[in-house]
Amino acid sequence: MPEVLMCETNVSEGRRTEVVEALVEAVRSVPGVRVADWSADADHNRAVITYLGEPDRVLEAAKALAEAALEAIDMREHEGEHPRQGALDVVPFIPIRDVTTERAVEIARSFGAWLGGRGVPVYYYEDAATRPERKSLPKIRKGQYEALEEKLEDPAWAPDEGPAEFNPKAGATVTGARFPLIAFNVNLRTDDVEIAQTIARAVRHINGGYKAVRGMGFALEERGMVQVSMNLVNYTETPIHRVLETVRSEAARYGVAVAGTELIGPVPLGALEEVVKFYLQVHDFTTEQVVETALLA
Amino acid sequence: MPEVLMCETNVSEGRRTEVVEALVEAVRSVPGVRVADWSADADHNRAVITYLGEPDRVLEAAKALAEAALEAIDMREHEGEHPRQGALDVVPFIPIRDVTTERAVEIARSFGAWLGGRGVPVYYYEDAATRPERKSLPKIRKGQYEALEEKLEDPAWAPDEGPAEFNPKAGATVTGARFPLIAFNVNLRTDDVEIAQTIARAVRHINGGYKAVRGMGFALEERGMVQVSMNLVNYTETPIHRVLETVRSEAARYGVAVAGTELIGPVPLGALEEVVKFYLQVHDFTTEQVVETALLA
Repeated sequence: MPEVLMCETNVSEGRRTEVVEALVEAVRSVPGVRVADWSADADHNRAVITYLGEPDRVLEAAKALAEAALEAIDMREHEGEHPRQGALDVVPFIPIRDVTTERAVEIARSFGAWLGGRGVPVYYYEDAATRPERKSLPKIRKGQYEALEEKLEDPAWAPDEGPAEFNPKAGATVTGARFPLIAFNVNLRTDDVEIAQTIARAVRHINGGYKAVRGMGFALEERGMVQVSMNLVNYTETPIHRVLETVRSEAARYGVAVAGTELIGPVPLGALEEVVKFYLQVHDFTTEQVVETALLA
Repeated sequence: MPEVLMCETNVSEGRRTEVVEALVEAVRSVPGVRVADWSADADHNRAVITYLGEPDRVLEAAKALAEAALEAIDMREHEGEHPRQGALDVVPFIPIRDVTTERAVEIARSFGAWLGGRGVPVYYYEDAATRPERKSLPKIRKGQYEALEEKLEDPAWAPDEGPAEFNPKAGATVTGARFPLIAFNVNLRTDDVEIAQTIARAVRHINGGYKAVRGMGFALEERGMVQVSMNLVNYTETPIHRVLETVRSEAARYGVAVAGTELIGPVPLGALEEVVKFYLQVHDFTTEQVVETALLA
């Protein structure tokens, strides 16, 4: 069974389709790497390219994509609604299958060192952060590209790799490792939004809930329901089923039932393993038993 | 997303390891086909080689394996405990992902016609059967290799492909299409085996239960529990969760709880999709969202 690492490269180009397509092509040119998804947004003037494969292959693809992006994108000409700091803006490496966080951090650091060597100031974030105040992307990116020249003169913002000098064309890059995020929404059969908000507070970390849950309560007005909308930031620490069952139990105190749930976007097979094991009570099940995994090599 | 077909070729050779390995190698030599598993049993003098890939590739691999097996195995010299009729004994094609039963039958028939053209009498079984009495493998194989010469003189046993003449070296081959079988056991917290037997009768088709369930009740003596041991022969018609919840509900009438369950051997991702959808109530979920499927091409 091969190790699978994913990378979601965010670049500051969402208008010139031919440039974005060339970046996707740069990833595809690396053997053993698959592009799972890519999208470009003209208002944000930003594209996200998601690809996966064995860790060394993904590292190579990240470099190929970085080279093409640094060549094609000039931050002096960039404008768009989305916060950004560099041509190659954010490069998270995400463990999907049989890859430890340590290994993902190693790949991110190897990528960062390579990129720094090419004259781009690099900051490590999330699990690759070198200090607590660099864990969060919004903190690192505060002030955006426009503040970068001044920021680089502050020793507190000395980059983790590369020169502490402003690179007008490239800006700066944030790279690191983080766990795959699962966007999970639970819809409740009531139109009382306070119930969703109360339950969101019960399950989310910030108010005493589960460590790996962020969430909010919303009204789904056109459907006459409310939603507990959550991000599960580490499905091994806080599995999907446990969150759902807690939401269900808290909703029951108001006589409110779960109408349905939503899993938005990609989900690693490993996150579903725990769902299957819990609900089927199939204690020894492993995703190695999934027939299709034989085709993953 | 690629179509995935599986083939489980059963050959009458389980003692000469070098022969079995050469058969596995014949499959591996076909690009785009993966060997998921293979095993040889000396007492049975039989090997099973399981491989998968896109339908046309799997057909090609089945032919490559068949050629090598017909060359290397001589039924005149075969003895073993397992019932068998031919050197290339049984060749089921099994739809795993985005392949219809009709397409699997088409592949089986194409394989059968090719094999018949090489002088081997071929019978179609299961979903590829040409008449009801040929649906079941044990019925076709009754009397085994030793009865084949006489059987072929009976017009009722005229082969579906190939000559109605005894081929002493090759014997006959049974091929066809069938759904992947899921071996699912539910362990109950009681040592009263009658409870397991009663529940097995409640859920299995033969006594009025679910169409795609076969099952029996057993004692697990060393564990002080009992087991409802089942084969789910079509997980789309009768999904895993429905069977479990029925077993649970029937067990509850005796005050008996489910201690755990077992999924034995390979499970298609499609069978887990329904488990995830039911228990998480995630009505719009599809296995296309599973990150790793991007690597299946």
